[in-house]
Amino acid sequence: MNDAGPDLDTLVSLAKRRGFVWPASEIYGGLAGFYDLGPYGAQLARNIKEAWWNHFVKKRPNIYGLDSAIIQNPKLWEASGHVAGFNDPMVECQKCHTRYRQEQLDTSKPCENCGQTDSFGDSKTFNMMFKTSVGPVKGDDAAAYLRPETAGAIFADFDHVKEVTRAKLPFGIAQIGKAFRNEISPRDFIFRLRELEQMELEYFVYPQHAGQELSNMKQICWDWLTALGLNQANLSWYQHTEDERAHYAVDSWDINYAYPFGQKELWGIANRTDFDLQAHSKASGKELNYFDPETNTHITPYVIEPSIGVERLLLAVLHSAYYEEEVKGEKRVVLKFDAKLAPVQVAVLPLSKTDKLTPLAHQVYQRLNESVDGVVEYDETQSIGRRYRRQDEIGTPKCVTIDFESLNDQQVTIRERDTMEQKRVKIEELSKEVV
Amino acid sequence: MNDAGPDLDTLVSLAKRRGFVWPASEIYGGLAGFYDLGPYGAQLARNIKEAWWNHFVKKRPNIYGLDSAIIQNPKLWEASGHVAGFNDPMVECQKCHTRYRQEQLDTSKPCENCGQTDSFGDSKTFNMMFKTSVGPVKGDDAAAYLRPETAGAIFADFDHVKEVTRAKLPFGIAQIGKAFRNEISPRDFIFRLRELEQMELEYFVYPQHAGQELSNMKQICWDWLTALGLNQANLSWYQHTEDERAHYAVDSWDINYAYPFGQKELWGIANRTDFDLQAHSKASGKELNYFDPETNTHITPYVIEPSIGVERLLLAVLHSAYYEEEVKGEKRVVLKFDAKLAPVQVAVLPLSKTDKLTPLAHQVYQRLNESVDGVVEYDETQSIGRRYRRQDEIGTPKCVTIDFESLNDQQVTIRERDTMEQKRVKIEELSKEVV
Repeated sequence: MNDAGPDLDTLVSLAKRRGFVWPASEIYGGLAGFYDLGPYGAQLARNIKEAWWNHFVKKRPNIYGLDSAIIQNPKLWEASGHVAGFNDPMVECQKCHTRYRQEQLDTSKPCENCGQTDSFGDSKTFNMMFKTSVGPVKGDDAAAYLRPETAGAIFADFDHVKEVTRAKLPFGIAQIGKAFRNEISPRDFIFRLRELEQMELEYFVYPQHAGQELSNMKQICWDWLTALGLNQANLSWYQHTEDERAHYAVDSWDINYAYPFGQKELWGIANRTDFDLQAHSKASGKELNYFDPETNTHITPYVIEPSIGVERLLLAVLHSAYYEEEVKGEKRVVLKFDAKLAPVQVAVLPLSKTDKLTPLAHQVYQRLNESVDGVVEYDETQSIGRRYRRQDEIGTPKCVTIDFESLNDQQVTIRERDTMEQKRVKIEELSKEVV
Repeated sequence: MNDAGPDLDTLVSLAKRRGFVWPASEIYGGLAGFYDLGPYGAQLARNIKEAWWNHFVKKRPNIYGLDSAIIQNPKLWEASGHVAGFNDPMVECQKCHTRYRQEQLDTSKPCENCGQTDSFGDSKTFNMMFKTSVGPVKGDDAAAYLRPETAGAIFADFDHVKEVTRAKLPFGIAQIGKAFRNEISPRDFIFRLRELEQMELEYFVYPQHAGQELSNMKQICWDWLTALGLNQANLSWYQHTEDERAHYAVDSWDINYAYPFGQKELWGIANRTDFDLQAHSKASGKELNYFDPETNTHITPYVIEPSIGVERLLLAVLHSAYYEEEVKGEKRVVLKFDAKLAPVQVAVLPLSKTDKLTPLAHQVYQRLNESVDGVVEYDETQSIGRRYRRQDEIGTPKCVTIDFESLNDQQVTIRERDTMEQKRVKIEELSKEVV
């Protein structure tokens, strides 16, 4: 660990050891690009998603939720351009047939797999959508794709949502859900995955307001990330050059995070123009537009899209929360999560596992479990020092310790994660102290 | 609508018209077995999942969450028996090649598609897992499957979860997530889908306690459903006969719901024995077992599995909530959701859209949006009667109306969904009235 934060190995190791993230199917050797979230990772991800949903959907009067199917009619992905254009250029070794992403390969070098020189053929395109077959018939008639982004169905459902909500411009449609990209080289832990979860908002606006709305949205996204506790020093803006932008976007920005493996895209915020609604209108024969009551004309709205991956954000949250400190000559590792994200809100720790303490400790657990919104953990094995270290490493803001004195004075000790300060409080006042 | 509740067409129509559920990719002709949840369906599903997660995971000291990948190493599904055994017998018309599920077909009749008689060939098995390829290489080397149930990775991750949580028997591992089944005949709206979402709990117990634990779990599930507001008269128990049980289960029960298309499985609760942990131990070479400190021996726990589909539950919730009443000679349709499930908690309705009322109405909206945990909707177009009907049909427990008198007396009208009773309350006391 240096000033810039922990290195990747440190995070990978902690994530596995403490039950945040580990490779999927690890007992079968794993599968590149696929990870499982363990108990603390699953709750952390839930808290992140809930915070996003609250801020961007639930508490905004003009943003509507959606939960569309992962598998859609393949015509949707033809219209969106993904069947023809969601490609990665790929180069194959002619000897061992290992394939590489062209942009990562120096073709003048020997093949990394078999050592052959001058073995690389011409570059070919490789579609990154996962393909499957729907129904009992196989072949192209039944071909379907796992969605490469959640946005597609938002555009296809635009008219439905507009009708049932009677929304007026500007308004947004948002969803959280899995997306799949058959990356040739998944890498950097949970940064570049083949299966990921997206939080996407398509915010439909008057075309003439798109520039200003993009600017507003950039600010909203930035403010939300910092309120979530991300280290501001690790965040920066990057504007795509004309070459880098998708063909449909006229302006595209990334909020980059300084990951251990470099400055990388955390959140893309783009002005996608009316490309998608026009493309789906044309392909479906439906008119996906908006009747503007002010001018009495039908217009095709522009769309501002902030799109962020849950796992990339989770990794940034872990990275920003990670601290190492020296306490009495020993290293203390602590995840200083913002309290609303912490997978465990409070741990109830009887000083030792005895028949005397257990009934009172159970009472305290039950009282807190009813009053605290988040997870309350009960842990009675191992020394109290080891249990504190464990709670520090999963980022639990508060520990409540029940000792033998508690039996007499009905008081317990609250220990603060960040300061390690301890204070005695009455059990009946616990709910006020631990919110 | 009769005493047993609404028929399916009524629900399908309401679900689409009011933005709960509609066919996926409808502008492209849809895709059989795939549906999208619109704004109110997405929020209803979120509330259902949150209620399940709270009750079965977050608030239980010995149940741990997981969020595993949909695509796992294919060896997992070989070990679980799904590659060899997750089959539906299928019969094909030799003339037009239409395929039918054998159990639904009277082979003595002409083919429904082409009218040919005596055209059916022998029954063949058809694996219901969706297949895809991972990585740039195609073919069997890269074959992978979309999970047919979330349970698989729970068993494969058993050891990991046990280690990081240091759990003691009995303990559970739970997750919510998508599963995919390539049904030959998807049908009955969102009951038999090809893409569905499951809420599964694998509860690991001492083998000798499995009978009692199954019995306890049945009660917990039943109680939760009724607390959710499902009509008890529509719920019933069904015990699988020996022929019907999966080969690994020794006792299997369904909570059936009286859907418009018949008594069908809503929730399966089974004693899966130690089949899965044994199978994965054997296939992976890892020892997926539990060291019992009481007997100092390693045992393989049995597992009690309650498994429920989100969409089946959502359909039952819609069905149970649906009421038609006659009010002043007109039909009133109302969804009487339990308040914690309602997609909109409260609607703020200025009596008319005028410059005079808008500022106060916005104030009321903001006040409620801050104090109410759920969704607050703001709606100012159409007559107040039509807006009440709309809120009734999406199941909003309370409407708050701002009229011109409100400008003078700082009071608004609260209308109760179920009784249609109205009362005036002071704006400053609204937060107490609308929780």
